[in-house]
Amino acid sequence: MSVITIERKVLEKNDQVAAENRELLRKHGIFAINVVSSPGAGKTSILERTLEHLKGRLPVAVIEGDVQTDIDARRVAKYNVPAVQIVTAGGCHLEANLVRDALGNIDLKGIRLLVIENVGNLVCPSNYDLGEALKVVVASTTEGDDKPLKYPAMFRNSSVLIINKIDLVPYVNCKLETLRKNALQINPALTVFETSCTTGAGIPAWCDWLEQKSNVGGTAHS
Amino acid sequence: MSVITIERKVLEKNDQVAAENRELLRKHGIFAINVVSSPGAGKTSILERTLEHLKGRLPVAVIEGDVQTDIDARRVAKYNVPAVQIVTAGGCHLEANLVRDALGNIDLKGIRLLVIENVGNLVCPSNYDLGEALKVVVASTTEGDDKPLKYPAMFRNSSVLIINKIDLVPYVNCKLETLRKNALQINPALTVFETSCTTGAGIPAWCDWLEQKSNVGGTAHS
Repeated sequence: MSVITIERKVLEKNDQVAAENRELLRKHGIFAINVVSSPGAGKTSILERTLEHLKGRLPVAVIEGDVQTDIDARRVAKYNVPAVQIVTAGGCHLEANLVRDALGNIDLKGIRLLVIENVGNLVCPSNYDLGEALKVVVASTTEGDDKPLKYPAMFRNSSVLIINKIDLVPYVNCKLETLRKNALQINPALTVFETSCTTGAGIPAWCDWLEQKSNVGGTAHS
Repeated sequence: MSVITIERKVLEKNDQVAAENRELLRKHGIFAINVVSSPGAGKTSILERTLEHLKGRLPVAVIEGDVQTDIDARRVAKYNVPAVQIVTAGGCHLEANLVRDALGNIDLKGIRLLVIENVGNLVCPSNYDLGEALKVVVASTTEGDDKPLKYPAMFRNSSVLIINKIDLVPYVNCKLETLRKNALQINPALTVFETSCTTGAGIPAWCDWLEQKSNVGGTAHS
C-alpha cells in the first residue's frame, strides 16, 4: 500500500512540473508532441523524415530520450535543429523534470514545434505527462496487429497513431485494417497516419498535419 | 531518496520470492527461462514454433505475462501444454510473486521446461528476478541493429539472445553482423541464435539447446 501512495506522490509532483512546462511552451507558442512506441518502431526515422520535410517550413526543436547512448541525438543533429539528449541511465520513461531541464538548454525563441522522443517503451511512458500538447504513438506493422489490445493504456492516452513500416506489410503477419480497427476500438478519437520511412509514403500528410497544428500555436493545445 | 529506499525494499522482497520459486523449480528438476523483448519482437511466435518442435520430446509448461488480454495464452493453449496467463493490468513487468501464484496453478510433476513469457518491454523486466535459470532476450531485425547499445541492461542480464525475423533482413535497415557485434560488446557471454518463425530457420538449433539444458535438470541452473 505504501508503494502506491509514494507512486501517487511521484505522479502528482510530475503533473505539477508538466503543467509548468506546458505554460512555458504556451508562452512561446510552441506545439509540443510526446512521441512514444516500442523500441525500434521507427520514432527516430519518422523524426528524420519529418525534419527533412519541414526544413525551411517550420522551426523545430527536439528532445531525445534514451535509456543509454546519444545515437538518436546524433542522427537528429545532422538536420541542424536544436536538439538535447536526455539519457535516463536505466530509467524506463521520461519525466517532466527531465524535460524541464532539457528545455532550459534550448533557445525557445522562434521555435514552433517541439518533438519529444520518449524512451522506447509501450508501457511506462503512458503514465507521465511531460507538458506536451498531445501524445503520438507509433506502431510498426512488424509488431503485429494486436498491440493496441495488449497495450491499451498507450493507445488510450495518445491522440495520434502513426502506423509505420507499411512497406513491410507483404512480408509480415499484420493486417493494416485489423491494426487500425483494434486501435480505434481502444480509442475512437485517434487520428491515424500510415507511413513508410523507406519509401516516404505518408510523410507529407503527417507533416502537413503537424504544420497546421503548429501554426495554430501552442495555446490552442494547452 | 524515500522512493529509492522503497524501490530497494520492493526488489529485496522480489528477490526473496524469486529464490523460493527457484528452489521449487529445482526440486522438480525444471529448467525455467524468462523470455523478454520489446512488444512484437516475436516471443509468442517463437514459443509456438518451440512447442511444435518439442512436442513428444519434452514436457513443457508456460506462464504468459501480458499487460492486458489473454491472446497469447490462447495461442499457446492450442499446443496442449499447461499454460497460465498473468494479466498485469497496466504493470510493466512480471514480478516473482505473480510467478509464484501462477506456479501454484500448474501441476509441475513431470514438467522439464518452464517458459515464462514476460511483458513486452525492453527496460523494466531486466530488474526483476522471477526465479528462472536464465533470461532469453529476443531482438527482432525490424527494430534495427542498435538496440543492444540503447537498452544495455536487458542484454547484460540475459544469457541467450535470439535474433528473430531474419527473413526480413533484405527489407529492413539492420545488419545481422552489427546486431550480433553490438550485443556481444555489451555481453560477451551471450549464446546467440538466429531464427525466423516464418521460414522456421534456426528453430531446431534453439530447441536442441533447450532440450539439452532441460535434460541436465533444473539443479544445474539454480
